[in-house]
Amino acid sequence: MQLVIGNKAYSSWSLRPWLLLKQAGIPFEEIVIPLQQAGSHEAILRYAPTGKVPCLLDGPIQVWESLAICEYLAERFPEQPFWPSNPAQRAEARSLAAEMHAGFAALRQHYPMNVRRQVPPSARPPEVERDITRFAALIESLRSRHAAAGPFLMGEFGILDAMYAPVATRCHTYSIALPARTQAWVDHILALPAMREWYAAAAAEPWVIEASEPKSL
Amino acid sequence: MQLVIGNKAYSSWSLRPWLLLKQAGIPFEEIVIPLQQAGSHEAILRYAPTGKVPCLLDGPIQVWESLAICEYLAERFPEQPFWPSNPAQRAEARSLAAEMHAGFAALRQHYPMNVRRQVPPSARPPEVERDITRFAALIESLRSRHAAAGPFLMGEFGILDAMYAPVATRCHTYSIALPARTQAWVDHILALPAMREWYAAAAAEPWVIEASEPKSL
Repeated sequence: MQLVIGNKAYSSWSLRPWLLLKQAGIPFEEIVIPLQQAGSHEAILRYAPTGKVPCLLDGPIQVWESLAICEYLAERFPEQPFWPSNPAQRAEARSLAAEMHAGFAALRQHYPMNVRRQVPPSARPPEVERDITRFAALIESLRSRHAAAGPFLMGEFGILDAMYAPVATRCHTYSIALPARTQAWVDHILALPAMREWYAAAAAEPWVIEASEPKSL
Repeated sequence: MQLVIGNKAYSSWSLRPWLLLKQAGIPFEEIVIPLQQAGSHEAILRYAPTGKVPCLLDGPIQVWESLAICEYLAERFPEQPFWPSNPAQRAEARSLAAEMHAGFAALRQHYPMNVRRQVPPSARPPEVERDITRFAALIESLRSRHAAAGPFLMGEFGILDAMYAPVATRCHTYSIALPARTQAWVDHILALPAMREWYAAAAAEPWVIEASEPKSL
């Protein structure tokens, strides 16, 4: 199995299925294509018809879009608790994962993922404020209900944590003050060995696009 | 089972799960909340924590986001061919559905769904052109491979058709010229009795927001 991803400093979409596979201990080969370089788009088009990362290759099967890759992996590894086994919880997890997949546009645009930066807090546009308020509200609600089951959003690590993990990195990068339960989840995610591995690899990447910080990776 | 939707003239997201349920002959109750009226957002918040339609209520279970609702229905009604049974086809269908869920932003912004309008062709911004090119390419590819299996995207009607159905209405509304196989699929979708029912209901709706055409419904 091969996972085609962008460079780790910037590619929030790539982080999602990568973290899911790492946390589950599923072996895979990484194919890293640095973004916003000459020929990046063409290089990705060899794997994904959208020209966007991530893309999963499993023998002849090609899956693109982070959420579709997660659904594919949940089916492929049914022994993994990628989705909660309880139907109502699974419905909620899918709703929240889809909300992340299509939403939080202002947060993504104004606060792009960059795991190599940390900046002091600054004034936020109202639409970013709304996204952060929604993010904190949903994390607080999940953690207040699932605290006894474990430290992840619904207790055990799952797709939902992977989908929201890039937001945890943004909270750190942009020094966003959070309510206690949300901050605890952010800290827990950022301390995972897999996340430390991602950060270390990002720090060692030679590609820099700082001058023209990408708007939405 | 109850489906909370926006008014049919404009709410492209609502059309997706509504069409899936109708095509499958699954009975449900409709709760219509007209969009962009005083109190719309608060009315939707009673059902969905995002304040956005659609939302599915199934006893105590609440599912929001059109793609999550489709996944929920696929699990709830396993006898329905909502996803293809072949794993490779299912992976492709999920990738394309997720691509629609999060993508085609320019098309959605510049060409909002309005099933009560039809306007002549006009010059298109390049980003809209790119979305239409991608849309036509994926439909042509699917239809060239699945023509023998039936008239829908992968032969039988499924989630993939429901997810792309609002684009079919936009092609009609904005008089977009399409390659032959794509046009045939658009015509087939728009002629479905369920779609005629949606159009008729939209035509009878009292709410008008023409003057300030919504940007992204």
